[in-house]
Amino acid sequence: LNRRLAEFGTTVFAEMSALAQATGAINLGQGFPDTDGPEEVREAAVRALRDGLGNQYPPGPGVPELRHAIAEHQQHRYALTYDPDTEVLVTAGATEAIAASLLALVEPGDEVIALEPYYDSYAASIALAGGTRVPVQLRPDTESGTFRLDLDELRDAVTPRTRLLLLNTPHNPTGTVLTRDELAAVAALAVERDLLVVTDEVYEHLVLDGAHLPLASFPGMRERTVTISSSGKTFSFTGWKVGWVTSTPALVSAVRSAKQFLTFVSAGPFQYAIAEALRLPDAYYDDLRDSLRAKRALLTDGLTAAGFGVFRPSGTYFITTDVRPLGHTDGIDFCRHLPSRAGVVAIPNAVFYDDKPAGSPFVRFAFCKKDEVLNEAAERLAGLG
Amino acid sequence: LNRRLAEFGTTVFAEMSALAQATGAINLGQGFPDTDGPEEVREAAVRALRDGLGNQYPPGPGVPELRHAIAEHQQHRYALTYDPDTEVLVTAGATEAIAASLLALVEPGDEVIALEPYYDSYAASIALAGGTRVPVQLRPDTESGTFRLDLDELRDAVTPRTRLLLLNTPHNPTGTVLTRDELAAVAALAVERDLLVVTDEVYEHLVLDGAHLPLASFPGMRERTVTISSSGKTFSFTGWKVGWVTSTPALVSAVRSAKQFLTFVSAGPFQYAIAEALRLPDAYYDDLRDSLRAKRALLTDGLTAAGFGVFRPSGTYFITTDVRPLGHTDGIDFCRHLPSRAGVVAIPNAVFYDDKPAGSPFVRFAFCKKDEVLNEAAERLAGLG
Ligand SMILES: CSCCC(=O)C(=O)O
Ligand SMILES: CSCCC(=O)C(=O)O
Repeated sequence: LNRRLAEFGTTVFAEMSALAQATGAINLGQGFPDTDGPEEVREAAVRALRDGLGNQYPPGPGVPELRHAIAEHQQHRYALTYDPDTEVLVTAGATEAIAASLLALVEPGDEVIALEPYYDSYAASIALAGGTRVPVQLRPDTESGTFRLDLDELRDAVTPRTRLLLLNTPHNPTGTVLTRDELAAVAALAVERDLLVVTDEVYEHLVLDGAHLPLASFPGMRERTVTISSSGKTFSFTGWKVGWVTSTPALVSAVRSAKQFLTFVSAGPFQYAIAEALRLPDAYYDDLRDSLRAKRALLTDGLTAAGFGVFRPSGTYFITTDVRPLGHTDGIDFCRHLPSRAGVVAIPNAVFYDDKPAGSPFVRFAFCKKDEVLNEAAERLAGLG
Repeated sequence: LNRRLAEFGTTVFAEMSALAQATGAINLGQGFPDTDGPEEVREAAVRALRDGLGNQYPPGPGVPELRHAIAEHQQHRYALTYDPDTEVLVTAGATEAIAASLLALVEPGDEVIALEPYYDSYAASIALAGGTRVPVQLRPDTESGTFRLDLDELRDAVTPRTRLLLLNTPHNPTGTVLTRDELAAVAALAVERDLLVVTDEVYEHLVLDGAHLPLASFPGMRERTVTISSSGKTFSFTGWKVGWVTSTPALVSAVRSAKQFLTFVSAGPFQYAIAEALRLPDAYYDDLRDSLRAKRALLTDGLTAAGFGVFRPSGTYFITTDVRPLGHTDGIDFCRHLPSRAGVVAIPNAVFYDDKPAGSPFVRFAFCKKDEVLNEAAERLAGLG
């Protein structure tokens, strides 16, 4: 294993899901639902398979049906216009989109600013590209009960070597959704310092308070922003691995140069199915939100009752907690013993931090699970105190 | 786009398939069959989808069913033993396996020896890893009518900076299958110079003369070889993107470290379907071979009649030709005009060479197409002279 990757072992998700399987614990670690998405979407995949749609190499940028559906979706939801032929690229999930974007856009030695804590593939992709990551921490704010971006810290992190800002809103693992004012300030900074922005918005349809605001919709951003999204979280088929990038023709073509050598193309039949999924009526998205709001309430209550400090997520299906009220200070250690102590798996936020002490007391729980599973988890956690 | 990728534009396959679509020409360029694989394999994918197998994130190394099937297959075909839990990794096709292997195993500045001409992702992946590629040319040999490896050239290419040998047998685009003696010599060299070997054997079941000999079966190779294969070519579902790596636990774990940040996991339901496909009876593989032998004969005759110089492929479903007998010297130019001149798309081998003059007269045609399509292509090409 080479030096660039030496600090990255097995992703925490794989490790924790394996622990869940080995112990039979309830898995509130990795972010996948325990109920598959709409039957009609699954049957669209069956039809594609049987009709021979996508069984052979689809076009490199993705099948036209999906690229058009993605562009129409952006238009319909956000009034953002993308040319399906030159401004949309289908990827093997958001993870490939992140890797390809960074490999394409970062030169060795470039600095990449990312919000800490961050999804672990960000750090690895920056390292693979030979870049240097510059974390800007979201700070726990006890008054609002959320993690917040300090805009002055962000501004101070920009140097002449900064190549791009890697954003993520709604934010995993904290559940923070950047506000309109915050996004406007980020956009102004990017324009002022002429930065590229890669924004991971895979939780765009999991904004539970307010509405999703794509960074690309802010002044000056459309032309400097690579927006990443994916079908896995929105349609509850995380195993299909259909993601995408929308940006300018020049940036999409750069990302595609890297993508074509990472996976060549992305699985064909699912592209057709997701093209249909993106045309589900608005009611589908509303129901998803309503259902997740109820689940957020369930798990919030359970965690609060069990004695955790609970941060309120405005988006994603994750809740970050503070384990200090339970008498613990080391979240990694806490998570390692949680399956045997309580039969539940969670993710220690520390793995998403360079600054381990800052992340140490925080632990993440996923609530994209059946109500009875969340109730059972809450009961088990209640015995912890 | 950063400097590392600057020399790589759009992969030639995408470009040529787009040309085929735009002109309605017969596409003998990119290597995908025009008939989908076995119905029972497709229906296995349908069952997986409907049974909820793989619709959510599968395990990072791949679903156990597929890892076991891969290990059993290696045992059954080649008497090679791999532990499905630690020595098998499922990837998003062979392309991801190549990218992940090189990103994991090559340090900036390392030299990587590869057989020229090479599948274009090799060069790109070496570049992404910051390595230096050292081509060793397969030389056209008019006597045998094949491209051959010069073992002295290979030996001379090894330097103290050589980190790994990147092999490919059966070889794309030439159709060369390395002989037992050649493989033994390569193995001896790798052992003598203590080199890692990454061997792309995706055409293992498309050996048309003789039998496939995995490099890992030669003395001293099992422990230093990363073997890459894939289901796309073997089962005629190139759009599903299910590939794999087999090697030692240490090497598999290194490749996995990179793979997990390229795509995280590979599409779930297809993994279950390919696990079933790998258990098809030997007759399936025999029939595939017989059918491709007949197609090779068809296209060889057609190309010969049309006046091409024809190299005989012992494996793959590609035929490399020489266009000089037709009065052309520049294969790239030849391929650019072939759709309008003859209604056929082919691939100029020059794109697989660093040494452009050496590759210039060669043009590749795929024969994984229906007999009537090959006949029609032969008729069209006959009009060229
Ligand atoms: C590891 S998969 C993508 C992110 C996610 O689902 C998680 O953070 O759990
Ligand atoms: C471009 S896909 C993998 C290789 C192949 O099919 C080809 O060489 O045509």
